[in-house]
Amino acid sequence: MTLVSRKDIEKRIQQIQQHIVHQKADACIISTPVNLYYLNGQIFDGYMYIMPDKEPLLFVKRPVSIEGDNVEYIRKPEQLPELLKKHNLSVPKSILLESDVLPFSGVMRFQKALEMPELKSVSGFLREIRSVKSDDELAQIRKSAISHARVYKQIPSLYRAGMTDLELQIEIEYVMRKEGSIGSFRSFGENMDIYMGSLLAGDNAQEASPFDFALGGKGIDPLLPLGSANKVLKPGTTIMIDMAGNYTPYLDDMTRTFSVGEIPEEALRAHQLSIDIHTEIISFAKEGVACADVYERTMEMVVENKMEQYFMGTTQQAKFVGHGVGLEINEPPVFAPRSREILQKNMAVAFEPKFVLPGIGAVGIENTYFVTETGLDKVTICEENIVALR
Amino acid sequence: MTLVSRKDIEKRIQQIQQHIVHQKADACIISTPVNLYYLNGQIFDGYMYIMPDKEPLLFVKRPVSIEGDNVEYIRKPEQLPELLKKHNLSVPKSILLESDVLPFSGVMRFQKALEMPELKSVSGFLREIRSVKSDDELAQIRKSAISHARVYKQIPSLYRAGMTDLELQIEIEYVMRKEGSIGSFRSFGENMDIYMGSLLAGDNAQEASPFDFALGGKGIDPLLPLGSANKVLKPGTTIMIDMAGNYTPYLDDMTRTFSVGEIPEEALRAHQLSIDIHTEIISFAKEGVACADVYERTMEMVVENKMEQYFMGTTQQAKFVGHGVGLEINEPPVFAPRSREILQKNMAVAFEPKFVLPGIGAVGIENTYFVTETGLDKVTICEENIVALR
Repeated sequence: MTLVSRKDIEKRIQQIQQHIVHQKADACIISTPVNLYYLNGQIFDGYMYIMPDKEPLLFVKRPVSIEGDNVEYIRKPEQLPELLKKHNLSVPKSILLESDVLPFSGVMRFQKALEMPELKSVSGFLREIRSVKSDDELAQIRKSAISHARVYKQIPSLYRAGMTDLELQIEIEYVMRKEGSIGSFRSFGENMDIYMGSLLAGDNAQEASPFDFALGGKGIDPLLPLGSANKVLKPGTTIMIDMAGNYTPYLDDMTRTFSVGEIPEEALRAHQLSIDIHTEIISFAKEGVACADVYERTMEMVVENKMEQYFMGTTQQAKFVGHGVGLEINEPPVFAPRSREILQKNMAVAFEPKFVLPGIGAVGIENTYFVTETGLDKVTICEENIVALR
Repeated sequence: MTLVSRKDIEKRIQQIQQHIVHQKADACIISTPVNLYYLNGQIFDGYMYIMPDKEPLLFVKRPVSIEGDNVEYIRKPEQLPELLKKHNLSVPKSILLESDVLPFSGVMRFQKALEMPELKSVSGFLREIRSVKSDDELAQIRKSAISHARVYKQIPSLYRAGMTDLELQIEIEYVMRKEGSIGSFRSFGENMDIYMGSLLAGDNAQEASPFDFALGGKGIDPLLPLGSANKVLKPGTTIMIDMAGNYTPYLDDMTRTFSVGEIPEEALRAHQLSIDIHTEIISFAKEGVACADVYERTMEMVVENKMEQYFMGTTQQAKFVGHGVGLEINEPPVFAPRSREILQKNMAVAFEPKFVLPGIGAVGIENTYFVTETGLDKVTICEENIVALR
């Protein structure tokens, strides 16, 4: 079932091998699903052992169905020195690990099992190389975006007067699954609990979130305070829909705004400002441009229009306006004031200038783009104006 | 929106405080959502700082809505020494952390920010105290189990001849959400990716899983190889349904078996053996009994019936027959051969003896029970025989 080409895998392994040499390490050991998929095309419980000058070895705990000359079955990390010896390899003195994700206790045990090598993190480097996509990866993001738009087009037909935000969200989730959504929504980091994306109706968009998302929402569970609050949708308010684009292993990201009947003129103006900012950034952001400058250019337009106090929240305001997308929803680069990243060709980015208007709700759009030499190539093809639900 | 009583919180904080003293540490610092909820009743991004002899302090990054005399807002861990000084507290020399869950890099940075205290893990102790439930927790598990059964009762009405396993799963997910499922499905550990539970039809139950679940399934995505394989449901095969019991913050666990029309006699016999094992274990397992003995007693009955080669899988067999449930789906204790855990009153456990029959599919049931002084109190109230779908 793998969708990763041999060519892509070989290129990625070479990049890791060069990084091992550059870091003066002996090996890089990969054990999280996302990076195993990226570097191996299939996931397993165990360790992918990458050396600077040899084919990688796979030390597999499960499943029993992984096959190949380079596969060794293993029960626990303490067996590694012996299994390395079997392959005429010495125990590494310095290793690269996914330290930003692997739990502390597990890394300590692993280090001891390998007779205490020096540890270095490969997480940042992997996120960096993952941020520039191959043709196959871009094609999958484009495919997710097409399914995503197909789902959003059905939203007006799902609305019934008097329904709650949660009821509408559940109808959307149901259509998503029928259109091929895989369900799970992968993110990076500790503080990103989510389920299939969020729907923010009216003043629920003002709720401050404990999570690192652009906007919050009260949610229906104290352990997952995010999104729909199970309240009836009120005429004159907006519904901001930012559901997952998880239709292939690669995610796109898209937000659209709907209204319950008519909404005030100021909401339409703020929404148009979001679209105008997109239009500006599509030609401003290109290969070689600093991500911090994209944030600054966006803020200039927000300030010119005196909309700072409603931008990216009210009581709590997010300090970024976009981010990379790929196997996880929050990849590099990030459009933030202190970002040091420079846009590169074939990065895939989501841009999401949003406004939250008290008494009305959130407005604005989020699109996914590919970075080119001349600007941003729009991947999201879906109506951008506010669609009224009746 | 908190559902955690002051009484429960006070008792838990006291247990942590005694543990700090016992471990000769100065403080325990909690920062993951599940344990923040358990010890504080609400989650946030930041640190709960528990001392042996004082009210806990909350160092909050976000949301901005957390209030209280004991709340300090913070941007980064490097501010902690200064903020502790403000409260006339010295920087701790030894701390307890959730080391089994927190990422390695984050712990390293945190340790440096606190001027290099000694680190000890509190993860195991927290899982241990969480395994014995309060009355409020038991009531929530019971409530989840009632909603869970309400959903499963609707399954026969969701079936249509010629549908795929995935189509049936999507219909069940839709009903789950309408009955109050929160969507997200919390588990502990690195190797438990899942989405709303699994449905295993026919020989898909034999697929070896990379994850630590009892059974596998091929799935529809190479990054989430689990559950439905998008294949048409075939007459004469079984469908094992093990979807999430996530209707309150506390999870119950339940598996039921359905058949597509008539199935062979041997499948009905194996299913009855699973029910008979439950009947035996309900009186065998009680306060004071070793969890390893529950596993051994189960295996004795499996061997007496010459069903070892079909028990808990075929090509890959799980080496446990049950586990604790609570805020996460895989809590202690575990019914496994090398488990050292002893059953305690008010533990909540799921017991799941399952058989996989080649050419037919998986059979058996999983129920949730509370441990009492005299046996197991059945929480799962739902038809146990195989229900035929037509």
